[in-house]
Amino acid sequence: MVPSTVDALAAERSKAQFDIAEMNRFIVDEKTRVKTAKIERILAAEPEMFNLRNVYFMSRKEKLDHALKIGVRLIELMREGKLTSEEVSYADFILDINGPFGLHRAMFIPTLQSQATPEQQELFLKPALNYEILGCYAQTEIGHGSNVQGLETTCTYIPETDEFDVHTPNIRACKWWVGSLGISATHAMVMAQLIVNGKSHGPSPIVVPIRSTVDHTPMSGVTVGDIGPKFGFNTMDNGFLMLDHVRVPRVNLMQRYISVSREGKVSRPSNVDPKVTYGTMMLVRAEIARNMCSVLARATTIALRYTSVRRQFAGISDKPLTSKTESPVLDYSMVQYRLIPLLAQNYAMFGVAQVYSELYEECMREMDRGNFGLLKELHATTCGLKRWTSDVTIRGIDTCRHVCGGHGFSQFSGLNEFFGNAYPNIIWEGDNYVLSQQTSRFLITQIRNLRKGKPVADNQTTQYLQKHLVDGRLAQVPQPAFVGRSIESLVADPEVQLDLLSYRAAIMASELVDQMDEHGQSWNRSLVDMQRLCDAHSDYIVALYFRCHIATLPRSSPLLPVLNKIAALLFLYILEQHSSDLFRLPGRAAFTNAQVNRIEKMLANFIEEVREQAIPLVDAFGMSDLRLNSALGRSDGRVYEDYLQWAMEDPLNTDDTGKAIRKEWFEKYYKPVMHSAETSKKAAKL
Amino acid sequence: MVPSTVDALAAERSKAQFDIAEMNRFIVDEKTRVKTAKIERILAAEPEMFNLRNVYFMSRKEKLDHALKIGVRLIELMREGKLTSEEVSYADFILDINGPFGLHRAMFIPTLQSQATPEQQELFLKPALNYEILGCYAQTEIGHGSNVQGLETTCTYIPETDEFDVHTPNIRACKWWVGSLGISATHAMVMAQLIVNGKSHGPSPIVVPIRSTVDHTPMSGVTVGDIGPKFGFNTMDNGFLMLDHVRVPRVNLMQRYISVSREGKVSRPSNVDPKVTYGTMMLVRAEIARNMCSVLARATTIALRYTSVRRQFAGISDKPLTSKTESPVLDYSMVQYRLIPLLAQNYAMFGVAQVYSELYEECMREMDRGNFGLLKELHATTCGLKRWTSDVTIRGIDTCRHVCGGHGFSQFSGLNEFFGNAYPNIIWEGDNYVLSQQTSRFLITQIRNLRKGKPVADNQTTQYLQKHLVDGRLAQVPQPAFVGRSIESLVADPEVQLDLLSYRAAIMASELVDQMDEHGQSWNRSLVDMQRLCDAHSDYIVALYFRCHIATLPRSSPLLPVLNKIAALLFLYILEQHSSDLFRLPGRAAFTNAQVNRIEKMLANFIEEVREQAIPLVDAFGMSDLRLNSALGRSDGRVYEDYLQWAMEDPLNTDDTGKAIRKEWFEKYYKPVMHSAETSKKAAKL
Repeated sequence: MVPSTVDALAAERSKAQFDIAEMNRFIVDEKTRVKTAKIERILAAEPEMFNLRNVYFMSRKEKLDHALKIGVRLIELMREGKLTSEEVSYADFILDINGPFGLHRAMFIPTLQSQATPEQQELFLKPALNYEILGCYAQTEIGHGSNVQGLETTCTYIPETDEFDVHTPNIRACKWWVGSLGISATHAMVMAQLIVNGKSHGPSPIVVPIRSTVDHTPMSGVTVGDIGPKFGFNTMDNGFLMLDHVRVPRVNLMQRYISVSREGKVSRPSNVDPKVTYGTMMLVRAEIARNMCSVLARATTIALRYTSVRRQFAGISDKPLTSKTESPVLDYSMVQYRLIPLLAQNYAMFGVAQVYSELYEECMREMDRGNFGLLKELHATTCGLKRWTSDVTIRGIDTCRHVCGGHGFSQFSGLNEFFGNAYPNIIWEGDNYVLSQQTSRFLITQIRNLRKGKPVADNQTTQYLQKHLVDGRLAQVPQPAFVGRSIESLVADPEVQLDLLSYRAAIMASELVDQMDEHGQSWNRSLVDMQRLCDAHSDYIVALYFRCHIATLPRSSPLLPVLNKIAALLFLYILEQHSSDLFRLPGRAAFTNAQVNRIEKMLANFIEEVREQAIPLVDAFGMSDLRLNSALGRSDGRVYEDYLQWAMEDPLNTDDTGKAIRKEWFEKYYKPVMHSAETSKKAAKL
Repeated sequence: MVPSTVDALAAERSKAQFDIAEMNRFIVDEKTRVKTAKIERILAAEPEMFNLRNVYFMSRKEKLDHALKIGVRLIELMREGKLTSEEVSYADFILDINGPFGLHRAMFIPTLQSQATPEQQELFLKPALNYEILGCYAQTEIGHGSNVQGLETTCTYIPETDEFDVHTPNIRACKWWVGSLGISATHAMVMAQLIVNGKSHGPSPIVVPIRSTVDHTPMSGVTVGDIGPKFGFNTMDNGFLMLDHVRVPRVNLMQRYISVSREGKVSRPSNVDPKVTYGTMMLVRAEIARNMCSVLARATTIALRYTSVRRQFAGISDKPLTSKTESPVLDYSMVQYRLIPLLAQNYAMFGVAQVYSELYEECMREMDRGNFGLLKELHATTCGLKRWTSDVTIRGIDTCRHVCGGHGFSQFSGLNEFFGNAYPNIIWEGDNYVLSQQTSRFLITQIRNLRKGKPVADNQTTQYLQKHLVDGRLAQVPQPAFVGRSIESLVADPEVQLDLLSYRAAIMASELVDQMDEHGQSWNRSLVDMQRLCDAHSDYIVALYFRCHIATLPRSSPLLPVLNKIAALLFLYILEQHSSDLFRLPGRAAFTNAQVNRIEKMLANFIEEVREQAIPLVDAFGMSDLRLNSALGRSDGRVYEDYLQWAMEDPLNTDDTGKAIRKEWFEKYYKPVMHSAETSKKAAKL
């Protein structure tokens, strides 16, 4: 007798060797837990409004309409005092509906807060906070993405009228991708090259009214619209904007960090806060790195629950098909190998999010005190973590979809609409490949400084470079701590694990600097090495932060056994994935074939062990059914019943809409094809 | 002065060191070229009908409608004698519109052709060929994918009425994913467990009428519908089907390979053609492996053209931003590293398609003569190639999208709708992970036979196993030919390259059998090794077939220099991607750090060289603009102009539809939000 999917999931759950709620409290910080619970309560109270079940059936237009409806309701809830602005943004994240008011909150208002003078705040920020004007942040141009300095839109001071002339000089300068611009915004914060008296002063933000607040028609000289359908994110009205010598008053230029006087004198305050340049970039990337853990958790929850109830073949033994009861696909080692290390990475990411947040707060506090020593290292690490977490997440969602087989391809898996929405995280805020240069550049600079005997700031990165290198160079001594140790003893000792992971990054960095400085390898030719270096550094940081997070538990915690297993598994997985790096370590540090074989065997053992706790472990992520929006990942295991039911709800199938559609198609297409053949055949017979 | 994208692409094209048309004739076989040209001519003659430009704006319903309209027109063209049935299927492939009549042609008719008796062909095949009935092939069940033996739908013989009772006993047995079933089919070829006199005879195909040919309403006892929206393939009406004791006449059971008499006697002809079991599976997988080259070509053409005109930063030198003219992103080594080896794989795949086709034909001819010696090896190799080509293609399209940056995320890139449609190739006809077992099982069996001294058939696989192993085991002699050779000399010698690639696979296979047979490693525990083994075997086969294809050119051919470079690049790339395998080769064959460093350097050099010919090389694929359906990949380089124009055509933007939509949303959503704030503020002021 084949157990039902409901019973199979319950059986998995009953295997828990730890308290699921306790684990949830450990891995998700209190603030997030409270916020999530509050929002989900409010959403659940209005199931008609916040229904996500129909999203998979919607056209682009219907999605935008749905997002607008939800967006307006959330603003109402805010006005009623039931949600804060921050909670509204988090509700968007939970619903995975990035609506047309999103960038007003995420970019337009923050820019006004940080770059407007008090007078300008009165003029723009106040109505923005009241949603009397709707804003967007227009930086990217169709021909210019990452390179802000290369933007071509101009704003030229016209002393005669005390105005700026904001202009799109050619098609490459057409603003593009700007969120909330396509349909919604009445005002755009335009990044434009500031030109005063014929002299260029670099890109500066300036407020340009683009649509009437009275009837929403475009202002004179403004060409604006939606950039069209995308791979995901279709609830957002990303837009384009071309300005034909549009005039705005001088006060519209954000004047906190640069100001233009009535006479056309340009001045900058001398005490520009470095937080403005590094800080805001870092803030957004930090947010991505911190969010990815719960994005990935959505996918791992669905995939692990589904593969533990999905059965295919009776193939666990050497003789497939001898038994009649098929095996859960999660019992196949190949499925485990694809999902369990991903689960370990996901656990690590939750730890990283918490430890990183503390470091970030500390760095901000230090900067407020005038100490910028942590800033550059944290910036480099943030770039690496943004890349690491978003890469793992996007590849991970794809793995989760694929491991669900055909059903992963259905929208009702919950993994596809969601994949499209999550995908831009590897592109925006610094494409992951470009971003690797930021991290590597920092490591390279530190090594060059060490080699020149220059002083370096004291931080996690310079610590390991100094530990493993002598004056920035490879040396016979000190011998790293892992040399001569068995894999078993490595697995038992977190300190030595970190020693190995940081040694790998230090050697890679040192060898890259050798290539560049001693063998003339150009920067461009070094880009492939740089991304490997960035990943090696990030592997170490992830392992380090994860261990730091686990170390906050009391030694008697019942959560420790499984968490230590997960951390060891992650360590072995990093080694196994990069075994080539291990063979290439210098001198006695180089791994042997036997050691790498041992790593693979031990990894397989750990995977088998952690698989046993897989369902309790994903339950501990605390992903609600609302958020999963998936037939395959349902917490009650009613997979196929719900999947079929959901299909029945398709507008093509239902009695109210489907019947008419199908009748129309029958008359228009099927009948002519089928009956014309018959008719012509009958005619031929006569 | 920045060159226009049009000029930039023309400049790339002018660098061609070979004749593009000549290359096209070499890499695309004549049959395909002629067929493609004919179909594209017919499609171009009806631009209104076969317009693809609006597809990206369509809802699911509109896509189905569009696909039906096109499907009907193609049938008309067939009836007018302008297209053959095969050409109609190929037109679907070119248009990338898999319409509701697709499975009627691809599965229903072929099953009738191979498994129906002459009487049954009269009854079902004739009207099917005339499109008087519309069919589908209902095998997969919601709870059963790959495991055909495990299907639960039953067809039970009822001697009293000389009928079969076809029945869905539980929800797991609900037919699912069946193409052309959701809306279209009037008849389903249902795979059901044949039960006669209480005895089960395994899954057999039986024709079940499911919708009226008169008015298309479902027959009594039939629950049928569309399974809903998917990640791609949304022009296809994949459907579900549940049968509640539906009775059909005995003649509806396909009786060529199994027959049930009026008295309920079950018999099978003794001379079942093995082609029926192996052959049809192989046919479909072979078709996938052969098609992937042109699927991938679509993506590489778009990405290489676009990255050669897209400019970002002036960062080729060590000092970015000193020059004002930004560099084409294809000049960055990291972009080259992601695209140029993919281009090489793409070229190899075109060669593989041609060489494989000849082997396939030969195998079929031999089987007709009663010689089945090639069948099992070709089946194993086919599984490996299906996996290799579809993996490279799907990951490759994703890489192409990502390398286009933000614009890759737009539907107008042409890479997204297309990605979704191509994606199922890694899942269907044997999921790529499951399929690796087929290839590995064959290798394992051959080694076991060799070890036992049993005779093995003579084929490409057993040849290399016997060359590199002694009686199926690793031995000191013979030393493989590549040992002691420099990387330079390897690169110059195709024979030795193949020697190394086959050695890698032979060693891996032998070590896996050691683990299984001497160290008790279970089949399940060996699955990860099996997929690596499958890939190593396929790497060798791909390199071998590619070299065979190149070898068909005369030694004076002007195409040879660039093709030899591409083949060497592919070889180096395989080594670089699997350097860990090289370190792990036994004894003197093991690679050193210095050798692997040399491989990386030489690979980088080859990538730089082939990059210079990248645009001519993709031009030679002969992908028409119609087929690319991409703003970024246009052959004329008018990228941004077309991209903007396409966005302007979005129904949200146009005057005829967009104005009304935007007005509606303003009244419904924006105005209440903006004006209520104002109103309440004014009220507060009073």
